Amino acid sequence: MSDVPVLADSVRITGDAVEILDRRVYPFEVRWVRCATSEKVAVAIEQMVTQSSGPLFAATAGLVLAAREARHEPPEAAAAYLRGAGARLVATRPTNNHIRDAVQGVLEAVDEEWSSGEELAEAVTEAARAHDAAYRARSATLGRHAAGLLGDGARVLTHCWADAFLVATVLAAQESGKQLEFVCTETRPYLQGARLTAATLVEMGYRPTLITDGMVATALAEGLADVALTAADRVTLDGHVVNKVGTLGVALAANAFGVPYHALIDAPDPQARTIEDVVIERRDGDEVLHVLGRRTAAEGVTGYYPAFDATPPRLVTSIVTEHGVYEPSRVADHFTTDYPPAVPLYPAPDDPKES
Amino acid sequence: MSDVPVLADSVRITGDAVEILDRRVYPFEVRWVRCATSEKVAVAIEQMVTQSSGPLFAATAGLVLAAREARHEPPEAAAAYLRGAGARLVATRPTNNHIRDAVQGVLEAVDEEWSSGEELAEAVTEAARAHDAAYRARSATLGRHAAGLLGDGARVLTHCWADAFLVATVLAAQESGKQLEFVCTETRPYLQGARLTAATLVEMGYRPTLITDGMVATALAEGLADVALTAADRVTLDGHVVNKVGTLGVALAANAFGVPYHALIDAPDPQARTIEDVVIERRDGDEVLHVLGRRTAAEGVTGYYPAFDATPPRLVTSIVTEHGVYEPSRVADHFTTDYPPAVPLYPAPDDPKES
Repeated sequence: MSDVPVLADSVRITGDAVEILDRRVYPFEVRWVRCATSEKVAVAIEQMVTQSSGPLFAATAGLVLAAREARHEPPEAAAAYLRGAGARLVATRPTNNHIRDAVQGVLEAVDEEWSSGEELAEAVTEAARAHDAAYRARSATLGRHAAGLLGDGARVLTHCWADAFLVATVLAAQESGKQLEFVCTETRPYLQGARLTAATLVEMGYRPTLITDGMVATALAEGLADVALTAADRVTLDGHVVNKVGTLGVALAANAFGVPYHALIDAPDPQARTIEDVVIERRDGDEVLHVLGRRTAAEGVTGYYPAFDATPPRLVTSIVTEHGVYEPSRVADHFTTDYPPAVPLYPAPDDPKES
Repeated sequence: MSDVPVLADSVRITGDAVEILDRRVYPFEVRWVRCATSEKVAVAIEQMVTQSSGPLFAATAGLVLAAREARHEPPEAAAAYLRGAGARLVATRPTNNHIRDAVQGVLEAVDEEWSSGEELAEAVTEAARAHDAAYRARSATLGRHAAGLLGDGARVLTHCWADAFLVATVLAAQESGKQLEFVCTETRPYLQGARLTAATLVEMGYRPTLITDGMVATALAEGLADVALTAADRVTLDGHVVNKVGTLGVALAANAFGVPYHALIDAPDPQARTIEDVVIERRDGDEVLHVLGRRTAAEGVTGYYPAFDATPPRLVTSIVTEHGVYEPSRVADHFTTDYPPAVPLYPAPDDPKES
């Protein structure tokens, strides 16, 4: 077992390009998509070469590439070019706010005064590196809070691929000596659960159980898992959890069968007061009619693909952020908490620290 | 458009064999699996060559084949052989009671006195034909009751492949001039919704919308359908609906978002007082790790495959049988009703007959 799972470091900047691990085929193939321009990075994000936390790293890397593209321009022209490249990256996928925030964070460097495009490019490179590092640090912190919710021996049902948040949670649980078991949903149409979550958990030493998306309710009714845990792509200030389509079904089943459901995100979105403020991405319905490039549906049907769904606060047990564990209706307290609460709001009943 | 969809006539007895349309590959391939012995019919049922209503027809055809195999034996030996073949067919799949009832129905002929194996074989052939015809007639009757629940223009979400019951419902709706629209779940791992339901609805003149199994909750929350309708593989006397895994999630979502959910079955099972009396088939977990023969999951995971789930009566709006439309808690009344009620218990609000 390696210390860092493959997917935890899946965007890299080379001499003249950004290379992105192709999550559409991983782990069956380990193929890196080479993007020679920031525009190609944007297209790769749109085409699902990477997803979950991946677009954040791809976006910051895309800005580094854009800064290099403009490094021989005067600083004002380079700054304008970078703002355009940033807007293009933000437009790729509307639901998760990490791309928007990453672009905004890195472009703060652009607003300062620079003597040359070359100097600006160096500043952007440094800002991108700092943004990536800060996200990793936030993920590690929220992972410790999330691990605090899991009792020793907890059987965790997770949907889609919670990426950095899941890896951080697992590492924190391992550090505190907790045994965990996992049930993954396969997550059609892209099979992120069957491929990315499953492969990474195997890489980290587990042997996950895989179910199809339709089996969530019966798995929870039968007691196959005792906690449900997903990432969130966006959390609104009033506690709605927006995440990969299928999460709403997980939350409904968890609620019906008395299983707590926790959602993980580094921070709620201060720009989303409620669910009306979130754009749910509608992807091409044809993506529903195929699996791994092969047609799965009869001719004559029309696919429908809302890529995310919204789970109302009443179905969420807690939202875990960098700052601690919140009841959904109180998640805006994230912004007024200076440091994590000493104990989680929802201690796991079997947590040895509590007994 | 043909009058009878391909899947409505997908088991045929030839001169020396039973041929079963391979539903694992339909409609991508129209391949008939030739079973030269009743044992091979049993294996085909186990291996999912056919499913839903298919095993009923395969079982009666398998008994015809068994009777032919034993036709040169004295009648007592032939009868014993037939009982063995019947037990083998019943053992193939435990959850749906149609195979059990078909074998029992046809084997009643065996219990009479016959002068030769040849004569017995003729009686079995006739009993099989009669059992098939009675099932088709029951399906047609329940289809008329089910169509009575659907308003003109109803948008129907269906899960898996409701086979004869769905075809009968659609034909009855068409006869009464009702327009319908359909949303199908793809139904992993075998994709019965994406392939069988979708292909048959296209064949019958519709253009269904296809969603993945994880999209059911958001589809119903968004108002994509206004009624959910599935077959049942078994209904207990106290109103539990056992059907393809995923049905429980459909019912939970329908309940949460105010959408009625109706289950279709020719009759509840008089031998199943409650859900404890039903064996839920656990299939090989490896079936969850593949689609259309191709691996979909990372190495190192273990698949889990409960083929059916149980929906409690509180989540079911009505159960439609050959005899009418019942509240789940009253479904045992099916056996005391001599003929269908003049009007359905739950008339569709938009039904022109009611306005």
